[in-house]
Amino acid sequence: MRRICVDMDEVIADTLSEHLRRYNQAFDEDVTPLDLAGKGLWEIAPLDRQQQLRAFLDAEDFFEDLPLMPGAQDVLKDLSARFEIFIATQAMAVPNSLGPKYRWLQRHFPFIPPTHYVFCGNKSILRADYLIDDLPKNLLRFEGQGILYTAPHNLTATGFVRVDNWQQVAEYFASIAS
Amino acid sequence: MRRICVDMDEVIADTLSEHLRRYNQAFDEDVTPLDLAGKGLWEIAPLDRQQQLRAFLDAEDFFEDLPLMPGAQDVLKDLSARFEIFIATQAMAVPNSLGPKYRWLQRHFPFIPPTHYVFCGNKSILRADYLIDDLPKNLLRFEGQGILYTAPHNLTATGFVRVDNWQQVAEYFASIAS
Repeated sequence: MRRICVDMDEVIADTLSEHLRRYNQAFDEDVTPLDLAGKGLWEIAPLDRQQQLRAFLDAEDFFEDLPLMPGAQDVLKDLSARFEIFIATQAMAVPNSLGPKYRWLQRHFPFIPPTHYVFCGNKSILRADYLIDDLPKNLLRFEGQGILYTAPHNLTATGFVRVDNWQQVAEYFASIAS
Repeated sequence: MRRICVDMDEVIADTLSEHLRRYNQAFDEDVTPLDLAGKGLWEIAPLDRQQQLRAFLDAEDFFEDLPLMPGAQDVLKDLSARFEIFIATQAMAVPNSLGPKYRWLQRHFPFIPPTHYVFCGNKSILRADYLIDDLPKNLLRFEGQGILYTAPHNLTATGFVRVDNWQQVAEYFASIAS
């Protein structure tokens, strides 16, 4: 059975919308994903807000209740019948996210066993056939077939197999033998 | 640079001694590692203590302050000059261990960056050249060269490259090109 690794933030969890919500609330701004074409929130926020931008992520509750990316549950459930699914997330950059990410996965993806969660940093450690991720850096390090999941910050990245949503993930794998 | 994955429990952290300490204290016993030749604590504890045996591991503080295995720091520090070292631990079976394990690694192995921690379940996900682990099951699933680190429970396991201590790990890798 072929193996697919799936990133969490901005792939199955809508981390950006929560980050924007806290940023806009704290600084009385109205930044939307459309303002971030080709850029991360880090790049458009003034220097004196960088520390707070990071503090939002470090908050104990940030990763506890993130919204789901539309379709992620249904498509992964279908794919898990034909592929071995691992969730692989760069959790080590934000150690406070470890517990919340574990609980979030259990709540929203009960059909993926915890034996198939991978909390890591450098994704070159993954031995899998496919990796769906929003970070070009992660895909470049990965030895299998990378699939770039579209996020505002990666809109200008080229040279990757790209999917814009979970419907397109389903279509991509529909023709691939398991 | 070749890559070595290193397990935590009973390889760099002396998890067993803490488990025995709590067990002996709670049940007024005097079990030692010598009583466990070829067996896990689970196998020698009576049925009505199994739940408590698990509860010890689930305690918030169990993994916070485990003793080090002798030599692990020095040998890994030396090896990290010639090999890429990842710490790969089956943390998902005990979610309360996630934060404590992260902190323990930072405290005792500051020369290994958090990007190189992997908290996982099924170790077939690791892409590496070597895996040092005390669980035969993990080595059988791993695609590179497995190295069994001796622990009381695995004394009867055969068919593996085996090391009894960190000095032997150093000797094993001394003749291996990085």
